[in-house]
Amino acid sequence: MDMSTKPLIPVVALSEVFDLSTVFADEGRSGVQILRPDQIDDPASIEFALAWRPADDAFDSFPNIRLVSSIAAGVDSIIACPSLPETAVVSRIRDEAQAQMMAGFAAWNVVWHHRRIGDFVKNQATRTWERSFRPALPGQVTVGVLGFGLMGRMCARAIAAMGYRVLAARRSTAATEDEPGVKVISGATALAEVAAQAQILVNVLPLTEETRDFLNHDFFAQMPEGASLVQIGRGEHLVEADFLEALDQGRIASATVDVFRQEPLPPDHPFWARPEILITPHKASDSTRDEILRQLAENCIAISEGRMPPGAVDLSAGY
Amino acid sequence: MDMSTKPLIPVVALSEVFDLSTVFADEGRSGVQILRPDQIDDPASIEFALAWRPADDAFDSFPNIRLVSSIAAGVDSIIACPSLPETAVVSRIRDEAQAQMMAGFAAWNVVWHHRRIGDFVKNQATRTWERSFRPALPGQVTVGVLGFGLMGRMCARAIAAMGYRVLAARRSTAATEDEPGVKVISGATALAEVAAQAQILVNVLPLTEETRDFLNHDFFAQMPEGASLVQIGRGEHLVEADFLEALDQGRIASATVDVFRQEPLPPDHPFWARPEILITPHKASDSTRDEILRQLAENCIAISEGRMPPGAVDLSAGY
Repeated sequence: MDMSTKPLIPVVALSEVFDLSTVFADEGRSGVQILRPDQIDDPASIEFALAWRPADDAFDSFPNIRLVSSIAAGVDSIIACPSLPETAVVSRIRDEAQAQMMAGFAAWNVVWHHRRIGDFVKNQATRTWERSFRPALPGQVTVGVLGFGLMGRMCARAIAAMGYRVLAARRSTAATEDEPGVKVISGATALAEVAAQAQILVNVLPLTEETRDFLNHDFFAQMPEGASLVQIGRGEHLVEADFLEALDQGRIASATVDVFRQEPLPPDHPFWARPEILITPHKASDSTRDEILRQLAENCIAISEGRMPPGAVDLSAGY
Repeated sequence: MDMSTKPLIPVVALSEVFDLSTVFADEGRSGVQILRPDQIDDPASIEFALAWRPADDAFDSFPNIRLVSSIAAGVDSIIACPSLPETAVVSRIRDEAQAQMMAGFAAWNVVWHHRRIGDFVKNQATRTWERSFRPALPGQVTVGVLGFGLMGRMCARAIAAMGYRVLAARRSTAATEDEPGVKVISGATALAEVAAQAQILVNVLPLTEETRDFLNHDFFAQMPEGASLVQIGRGEHLVEADFLEALDQGRIASATVDVFRQEPLPPDHPFWARPEILITPHKASDSTRDEILRQLAENCIAISEGRMPPGAVDLSAGY
């Protein structure tokens, strides 16, 4: 398709956090042009938005928005926006390469906690040769994966390829394809069942009204004593005070936290100084800019042609 | 099989490093009994040895040894022993669970270097939120695996499951089973071909006269500028001065070293202080004691019954 002969599709960038028009500038190669609101002469002509943490009134000036695309897999900040037009379709990025990066990061963290590799890093600083810890064989370690969409499935697959016993939890009881080496538990009690059995628990759930604050005191109380948590879902899943309490009590022995309620994580935040926590700065995965723009263009064209866009979200499910 | 009714098979422990009779004491559950030389009244009656870095004259007092089993996958210290009887069969441990642990560790190190996770660990100490490094997608990163026996294959599989492009090098040109997602290069030039293409190189070769000192100046010169090395083979593969030179020149940007010419690594060794090196204390994998004893007993029984033991090593190949 020769883009040079077609006019670019104008898309308004709505974010309080990033200047998406700069981040996603690609000189029109994707067929869309991302514009700041102040670059738009006739807001009523704009049908498409690219959004990430939009301001509460972000959509008020754009009455004819038909599609709002997230820049990532999460759409929670868009769905929660009070000015979101009721009739707009919300779409997300569904990116295999991103899910693959997430999977590698999840598997990496499983090994980090299981093998206590952080101890080697610390011991190197004091030139200490200490090898007495004998980890269990991977086949004796149960890893729980909370969430079994594209990301959860790929995480489970990468972890199973390392020989771990993998239990995955999914809310839906609809039929799903088997994943070799992974036992899938479905339904309303799946999270609790998996949490009760997992020595290492990986959270890749979406953020919805149902999952907000679910990593809390009651949830941690169901986990085996001394378990590890790999929190790569969303910051709003985790009740931070309850988590610190679980660490203090040894309920949770170690954790990786990649997503936070406030990002960047403030310098005075208590997580930074906890030796049991590995902090990573929301880097479990990134979609590439080109892939996001490709999917955005695809979704805009579908709307223009009266089709449901491939990235459309089920607003009743919330993700 | 009821072991209680059978006499235990006496096996002499020959090691300058460990007291194998203590490490492998299992109250006879495996059917073998590991004895120190000073616990043996009639050395001429002993047909089996369990060995790890035996003394040069270790076998002189045991003229009728028919089988020498290593405690691990490597047999180099046994084959190199001047007093090893020419007619003895040498056997190694071939342990899927151990290979699986090795594979998880290899894959972990690939992600550690690719995603520069060590930077997050350092940044946490100064409460620094720094996320500007954007790693390539795993599918754009070529990982080389040197060695394609049981361990190499399982390493390649775990790394491929994370989405990396995997090239494996094997010396033999004999037919081998395909491994999905892994390209296997065979023959005399395989090491050099893989080294020239791999951004991250994992060494799991056995130690032989051919591979001793192969990680040297000339080899590093073939690697792409800024590559990473995961050295989990044997300490004697690595020419340490050449390796430090390659780090100084940026030829090798980062490395994990798990095996060393001298272990424990001495406190004054220059590796400890290099920020580019992650040092792990020979913990890439461990066979479990029970599995080693099970295979030792199996090999002893095979010899007694006139069969070639399943763990027997091809002495002409050296591994």
